[in-house]
Amino acid sequence: MTDFNLNADMSESFGAWSMGNDAGLLPLINSANIACGFHGGDYDIMAKTMRAAVAHGVSLGAHPGFYDLHGFGRRPLHLSCAEIEHLIAYQLGAALGVAALVGARITHIKPHGALNNMAAQDADMANAIVRAVKAVDANQIFLAPVLSALVKAGRDAGLVVAEEIFADRAYMPDGQLAPRGHESAVISDPDAALARSLDMLKTREITALDGTRKSVNPHSLCVHGDGATAVEMARHLKTGIVEAGFTPKTLPEMDLAV
Amino acid sequence: MTDFNLNADMSESFGAWSMGNDAGLLPLINSANIACGFHGGDYDIMAKTMRAAVAHGVSLGAHPGFYDLHGFGRRPLHLSCAEIEHLIAYQLGAALGVAALVGARITHIKPHGALNNMAAQDADMANAIVRAVKAVDANQIFLAPVLSALVKAGRDAGLVVAEEIFADRAYMPDGQLAPRGHESAVISDPDAALARSLDMLKTREITALDGTRKSVNPHSLCVHGDGATAVEMARHLKTGIVEAGFTPKTLPEMDLAV
Amino acid sequence: MTDFNLNADMSESFGAWSMGNDAGLLPLINSANIACGFHGGDYDIMAKTMRAAVAHGVSLGAHPGFYDLHGFGRRPLHLSCAEIEHLIAYQLGAALGVAALVGARITHIKPHGALNNMAAQDADMANAIVRAVKAVDANQIFLAPVLSALVKAGRDAGLVVAEEIFADRAYMPDGQLAPRGHESAVISDPDAALARSLDMLKTREITALDGTRKSVNPHSLCVHGDGATAVEMARHLKTGIVEAGFTPKTLPEMDLAV
Amino acid sequence: MTDFNLNADMSESFGAWSMGNDAGLLPLINSANIACGFHGGDYDIMAKTMRAAVAHGVSLGAHPGFYDLHGFGRRPLHLSCAEIEHLIAYQLGAALGVAALVGARITHIKPHGALNNMAAQDADMANAIVRAVKAVDANQIFLAPVLSALVKAGRDAGLVVAEEIFADRAYMPDGQLAPRGHESAVISDPDAALARSLDMLKTREITALDGTRKSVNPHSLCVHGDGATAVEMARHLKTGIVEAGFTPKTLPEMDLAV
Repeated sequence: MTDFNLNADMSESFGAWSMGNDAGLLPLINSANIACGFHGGDYDIMAKTMRAAVAHGVSLGAHPGFYDLHGFGRRPLHLSCAEIEHLIAYQLGAALGVAALVGARITHIKPHGALNNMAAQDADMANAIVRAVKAVDANQIFLAPVLSALVKAGRDAGLVVAEEIFADRAYMPDGQLAPRGHESAVISDPDAALARSLDMLKTREITALDGTRKSVNPHSLCVHGDGATAVEMARHLKTGIVEAGFTPKTLPEMDLAV
Repeated sequence: MTDFNLNADMSESFGAWSMGNDAGLLPLINSANIACGFHGGDYDIMAKTMRAAVAHGVSLGAHPGFYDLHGFGRRPLHLSCAEIEHLIAYQLGAALGVAALVGARITHIKPHGALNNMAAQDADMANAIVRAVKAVDANQIFLAPVLSALVKAGRDAGLVVAEEIFADRAYMPDGQLAPRGHESAVISDPDAALARSLDMLKTREITALDGTRKSVNPHSLCVHGDGATAVEMARHLKTGIVEAGFTPKTLPEMDLAV
Repeated sequence: MTDFNLNADMSESFGAWSMGNDAGLLPLINSANIACGFHGGDYDIMAKTMRAAVAHGVSLGAHPGFYDLHGFGRRPLHLSCAEIEHLIAYQLGAALGVAALVGARITHIKPHGALNNMAAQDADMANAIVRAVKAVDANQIFLAPVLSALVKAGRDAGLVVAEEIFADRAYMPDGQLAPRGHESAVISDPDAALARSLDMLKTREITALDGTRKSVNPHSLCVHGDGATAVEMARHLKTGIVEAGFTPKTLPEMDLAV
Repeated sequence: MTDFNLNADMSESFGAWSMGNDAGLLPLINSANIACGFHGGDYDIMAKTMRAAVAHGVSLGAHPGFYDLHGFGRRPLHLSCAEIEHLIAYQLGAALGVAALVGARITHIKPHGALNNMAAQDADMANAIVRAVKAVDANQIFLAPVLSALVKAGRDAGLVVAEEIFADRAYMPDGQLAPRGHESAVISDPDAALARSLDMLKTREITALDGTRKSVNPHSLCVHGDGATAVEMARHLKTGIVEAGFTPKTLPEMDLAV
């Protein structure tokens, strides 16, 4: 496959507070994950971000997180599976509602932060998330980290799954992201990040910190808008990947068949 | 018309806090207005309340309010029309999402608290609310106070409108509810409330505090679950109205043609 | 010692939502732990509860919790020690501020919920809490569970510590409360709870679920206002303890010397 | 008087969100108004900001606002006078608590946003704020807009009052700030702002939009950290005022006798 997708988390501002650089990233990415008001974002920012994304030809996804504004959804919370289902259904529904208003379409969903990290390694949580997605809109593309319990849960339930890799984060031997506390967790050099990305896209393997390589189906590369150089990093990655012969596509344009 | 509908606001608990008496009202009412998490309710309580309502054959409505948990949505906030649209689209979408998860249907929408009171007298706000409802789900029944700008906005836009009366609240000569601060605003005697209700249902007129009478189309009577005697009041009203020959119906069962 | 103290968590309502039965407990208890707005309570409810407590001759304590309203402070959050210090200093200060306004005095402090449970077993957290208390008001009595890291941290730092026992909760062999999930965790029979309480007060030992007995300094017994029979339980405990010859005192009236 | 004070609102970040440019302003200003967690700021950001301010020799004030995070305290809320007192006492207490922890002193208080704007024109609100300040800490300097009901309320109650002027905001003939919606409300040209400031400081008069001049006691000039050029504006104002012969002082260093 020579198609690829760049996704980024967006709409993470809240009320009077700004976060990220949505305006800087929108010209570069193909798919935007829209924070749904629980860890960031609010009804107003969601609508504005969706309108801007549509204007840039960027496809939209719901990006639900824990109901933890002060912790930005990055703190592990231990909810029951029923609570997880309700959490996802609410936020996906909210995103669908705002999208309907602004004349946009939500075509994928990606859990945020600690919810994503926990469910990546917890089949019960992953299945709960997937049950909610299927019940609310079974046509959603499920964007999930390569080698995660989320990918398996999505496929098992018959969702179309897009697998996500990170250019700027190191992998553990089991395929999970190295925790941010790990000294080598973050790759901040743009050339190194590009080289990693191209290696993953071309070989369809990830390389863990200990050198272990694992086969993956890398559909989408996550880029970030935080930090002074984030947009430059994203531009460098996109340019390099396109120059290497890959074609950027929105998630609905991708061939995601297994 | 000899059909009538009893509606009540529900799902107003939040986290560890309870509000109202949903269990006491559900056997009595026909339609439940589900708080959507902004002034009360949360994703978990919404799901539980919807399941309970379905089990009682009660139809469901979204009950969006201002994003003001501490004020319970009762404080006037001055939002732009665009913000109002986003506010409604988000909450209606969220309710549709949770309903899809629990296998329920949202068939009506009724604004809450200060949002309802302000829009009842403000055509711009009312039109903004209606635009959002139409964009998200044009099949929703719009439950709005008799003689309000909301009724007009809904009908002008082609929504099916159900008009709401209050058994326990006095009316001003212009047809608006007397403010709670007014000494005669609340009718707490169950027999007086029943007599008022039957008079409105039979004559299809409301009587204001100064004796003015105005023609209305009373489809639905709002009852409350707060307070020690609220459920008794609701039971008294329902029993009396049924004994007077009216037939209780859910909103989707009502003939709401103008 | 034949003095004892009954304490209860109070001021846990929030905005339009009520919690507990402060009015029912105030005539029975000697010391009230005032929720400080982070897990429950708000500036208005705090002021009202403090005024009511003073009217009943009940001494006041700050009851700081995690900043987690939706989870009522019962969910474990992993903060740095610096964050714990800031969290405590803010809430103790807020309680002192409201108390100054209403002409009351805050004379003790007791952490709430997950913050209390975690710090009871974590010396670093316990020391961080104690550092904040000492910095803000070193004259506060520190109310902490018997056999906990909090008791040790408080004493090590020179705070006056009051040790707390529970009439209605079982103990593990290490002296910690049995988790609520444990089948025998909660003692709901009033006579059994009273017998336990008297045994602890008279023998100055607690008995764990496996029969292990440990020496303690039981200064204060915690009672609860939640649930239909909570006030009856509290009354039964107080009456029985008084009849057994113990004298109820506020925390500042107690002899808390080690 | 040839002393003057530059104050700025600070500590307005929240959780993962940044606001303003505290680091850029701290070297320029003399007194910082610390948001207290209700409209912005949180316990952690308050502590960090206070430590930074102390390191720059900047004096600290509490900056309480309405309990309206999403609206950043800029929306008018209609509270009772008792609620206003509780609101202020809580936030002033919280600021005093955090300051005690970090070894800093809170020496002034200035209401924020809509609370300040409403109370500037409402003697009842102003008196309620002042009552709370006096009850919690009567030694606080009360920083209030020139010609406002707040100045009068503070002086009537015996508080030391510092009067505040704005370099970048136009005045109405009655001495109130022109609403932000007014076309001439904001002065964005640094030279114009400096000229206005020097005129106010030298003549001890403000000039309204219609040319009306009113006598004032301008102790403190408010500068802002929002926007790309805000720090440059603040530096330009400070430099120009110092060059004109005025001496920058913290509020406690100022002679505020009437």
